Amino acid sequence: MNLKDPVIATYAISASIMLLKIMGQGWITVYRMMKVGGGFLNPEDKNKGLANPKPRPGQLDADDYVERSRRMHRNDVENILPFLGAGLLFALTNPPLLAAQMLLYGFILARAGHFIAYINGWSHEIRATFFTIGSIIIIGMAIYTIIHTIA
Amino acid sequence: MNLKDPVIATYAISASIMLLKIMGQGWITVYRMMKVGGGFLNPEDKNKGLANPKPRPGQLDADDYVERSRRMHRNDVENILPFLGAGLLFALTNPPLLAAQMLLYGFILARAGHFIAYINGWSHEIRATFFTIGSIIIIGMAIYTIIHTIA
Amino acid sequence: MNLKDPVIATYAISASIMLLKIMGQGWITVYRMMKVGGGFLNPEDKNKGLANPKPRPGQLDADDYVERSRRMHRNDVENILPFLGAGLLFALTNPPLLAAQMLLYGFILARAGHFIAYINGWSHEIRATFFTIGSIIIIGMAIYTIIHTIA
Repeated sequence: MNLKDPVIATYAISASIMLLKIMGQGWITVYRMMKVGGGFLNPEDKNKGLANPKPRPGQLDADDYVERSRRMHRNDVENILPFLGAGLLFALTNPPLLAAQMLLYGFILARAGHFIAYINGWSHEIRATFFTIGSIIIIGMAIYTIIHTIA
Repeated sequence: MNLKDPVIATYAISASIMLLKIMGQGWITVYRMMKVGGGFLNPEDKNKGLANPKPRPGQLDADDYVERSRRMHRNDVENILPFLGAGLLFALTNPPLLAAQMLLYGFILARAGHFIAYINGWSHEIRATFFTIGSIIIIGMAIYTIIHTIA
Repeated sequence: MNLKDPVIATYAISASIMLLKIMGQGWITVYRMMKVGGGFLNPEDKNKGLANPKPRPGQLDADDYVERSRRMHRNDVENILPFLGAGLLFALTNPPLLAAQMLLYGFILARAGHFIAYINGWSHEIRATFFTIGSIIIIGMAIYTIIHTIA
């Protein structure tokens, strides 16, 4: 686990970029809650304060503008977090650098496409295609790790 | 962190199997959405397309057949992902191989039991028993890591 | 990745403590469901049994006492799990021990504050402040990892 190893470095960079993505999604949710002044989850969030300058009824109701960001966040949890584990194990198998770059950076591209398709409400097909590419990369890395470790 | 170390190899194999499980749960949700043609989450998913050949009212309503898979997925997120971290740290403590195999493969068996009980809607008690075994393994590995590292 | 390295040891201890926190949140949800005899998620949980000694109508309805713990759990998933990844990568950059201790143990303190503010229903501002500190630590470690690895 040496960051000077090119494969480990590729993993560290791609994992860190995806970590910034998932944390950023939380902040997009915060931004959207502040912008619409709603979509809050907790009763105490209805109180007037810096985070809620204009209390009004219905602030705990689901707001699709906010919920979309929460759905994107959940999708990140279900894909980016497994990627952190699968990518680490794959990197430990000492794969060819080019293969590691294609899979690890390819995952970033797939998730970037998923993000753009999701936040803009593009068709289910486009969003699902990007999701599928990312999912197959994780599954492929996990299978490769098992085969490499057993063999 | 050498995959030729038997304990690290045990971790890599068990973590990869659990990664395949959690990614597979996402695909079970997809399969169930396609099968019932509903349980969708996004307004754009109502549009006719490959993923939705037969648009009809109510496709965004919660469907328990689909929601069950989402609840299973959430449970995986709350247990399998912590396992990836706790198992890695535990493996780094250089534990006896037999103990590592019992805990790491034991976790897989507990989650397999949880999956079977959950997808078939078996009683709360059975499902909770398998959940508890898995949870205790994670908690035990985390406590062991703290004690081993401080001592 | 040697637990005798003080930075790696700091990571192992802080990550294990946060793992105990996230697993404990699941048990708080279980405790709350048992206490109110409600907030269940699955139809089969309505059946009489050890986990549900007193069946009654409405046991699948959302119960805010239980839901608060689930929201806290979701927040842990979105923050503690990324911390496990970001902290590991940061530790691999071989940072000064004091910086590692401040960031990794600082994250624990921020999440402890978040937990206390959330479970007691304190104001949005206080809860958000602790959330922000934890989030910035993760983001900072991820950015540092990228810069250190590329440079």
